Amino acid sequence: MTSVTVLGLGPMGRALAAAFIAAGHPATVWNRSPGKENGLRAAVAGTAAEAIAASPLVVVCVRDYAAVHAILDVEALKGRTLVNVTGGSPAQARELACWAAEHGIGYLDGVIVATTDAIGGPDATLFFSGPADVYEKHHHTLAALGGNPAHLGEDPGRAAAFDASLQDMLWTSMSGVVHMFALAEAERIDATDIAGHAKALLGFFPDMIDFLAGQVAAGSYPGDAGTLDATAATMDHVLAAARARNLDNGVLSAARAEVQRAIDTGHGSDGFGRLAALLLSDAAAGSAS
Amino acid sequence: MTSVTVLGLGPMGRALAAAFIAAGHPATVWNRSPGKENGLRAAVAGTAAEAIAASPLVVVCVRDYAAVHAILDVEALKGRTLVNVTGGSPAQARELACWAAEHGIGYLDGVIVATTDAIGGPDATLFFSGPADVYEKHHHTLAALGGNPAHLGEDPGRAAAFDASLQDMLWTSMSGVVHMFALAEAERIDATDIAGHAKALLGFFPDMIDFLAGQVAAGSYPGDAGTLDATAATMDHVLAAARARNLDNGVLSAARAEVQRAIDTGHGSDGFGRLAALLLSDAAAGSAS
Repeated sequence: MTSVTVLGLGPMGRALAAAFIAAGHPATVWNRSPGKENGLRAAVAGTAAEAIAASPLVVVCVRDYAAVHAILDVEALKGRTLVNVTGGSPAQARELACWAAEHGIGYLDGVIVATTDAIGGPDATLFFSGPADVYEKHHHTLAALGGNPAHLGEDPGRAAAFDASLQDMLWTSMSGVVHMFALAEAERIDATDIAGHAKALLGFFPDMIDFLAGQVAAGSYPGDAGTLDATAATMDHVLAAARARNLDNGVLSAARAEVQRAIDTGHGSDGFGRLAALLLSDAAAGSAS
Repeated sequence: MTSVTVLGLGPMGRALAAAFIAAGHPATVWNRSPGKENGLRAAVAGTAAEAIAASPLVVVCVRDYAAVHAILDVEALKGRTLVNVTGGSPAQARELACWAAEHGIGYLDGVIVATTDAIGGPDATLFFSGPADVYEKHHHTLAALGGNPAHLGEDPGRAAAFDASLQDMLWTSMSGVVHMFALAEAERIDATDIAGHAKALLGFFPDMIDFLAGQVAAGSYPGDAGTLDATAATMDHVLAAARARNLDNGVLSAARAEVQRAIDTGHGSDGFGRLAALLLSDAAAGSAS
């Protein structure tokens, strides 16, 4: 069994170390502040460099990239593989990968799409990106972390890019969910009453996502299933309802403004997927806000 | 079979008329511009007042409330029941219901949560609100429009309030979906590649909605399953990724600002559901933007 080092013992780092240990991997752990290793059957290193020196595979899971850079000992890491699952942007992942390559350090970027209690279980999804040979060398060991790992490609930023895209959808949607509850409550509709209808509506989302993905892939956005003009009218009803209850509506107003930009540039009879194309063409034109 | 009048023969009005006719109801139709009745086995009235006079149950489905008010003939409507399925806000529905009550007109407000091709089928959902006795009198006839009708309560604005709340979630989420596709494409991730992962993530939404509904209902927002502080960090990664690709991020930035308001008022260790409570308390304090 490959020995593994885990740097960072926050709730997720601890869960990762515990999963490696449960799978039989000798583990060495280190945390900036001591005492977090209690209950883990692992060797405890006195410094990050000592921890790194103990294993060919080093997993780092800390607060942010500033903490990653503060911890990593380039001399100790030479010839080893670093798997960084610290949250960050694709650019941060690519930058760290460059630094690793310059110093003869194998590098995989990882994203954990699972809660701490799911780590090590069959449903835990993990995204990895970086050189295929590095992934091939370690994927059996990394499989201890969850039953649903995916190597998304050689671009080290790809795991973070997948994650950013999905978190974008997730947290924008979640903002819509809490605003729905607020508007419902303001209208004296119980949260538990609207929840059932919301879940029924969600039943249509997988088909909608496939439909929109098809439009984006084809670069064609016919409005047969609903036009941006009609969406604008619907959003205006919602905004009127929210304003009548004095509810802040900054999120939906921003979404409405994007629809208006599409209408103003002649796309009112297109479908909603057109917005993806406009966001991209605006970005290419350098006009992003 | 009860005779039915349908005012307004846009795509939805036509679908409603066709569903009544298919269920065996003698139908009278009227549209502001002629010719839209082609292919419908219905009597065609020359004026809205004539159409109204032909049936005890009058369904109006037009562009907006201004069009509703322009069409309705108060003398012709007296003693009949008006079912208005024109899109609008809860306040507009309540105002029209008051007007109807003042003039001895039965009133139900309706929302059609279905596409035109689903109308009349078993899965078409329709929300109605207004006096229970009016709904009881006509629900057998209205059942011709879809297999999943719901009377949501006596408040005539309730159907529109349910609809506004659900559309709020829907279109905010849809904005997140198209932004996800744009960010993914900017990162050279194909829309069809991210779609599968997005659908997998959606699988957690029903439980999340129930979880948040439970928190809102209890007025308690512990951050055990994730804190607003952690959400802020995640959103910042997404925003950094979007900015690095020069993508407009107005929607997520607005959502991030709401999270910051919660953190700034001491709720950083609470869960995301806290935002619903803050939106409501801000509204009650009259500080909505």
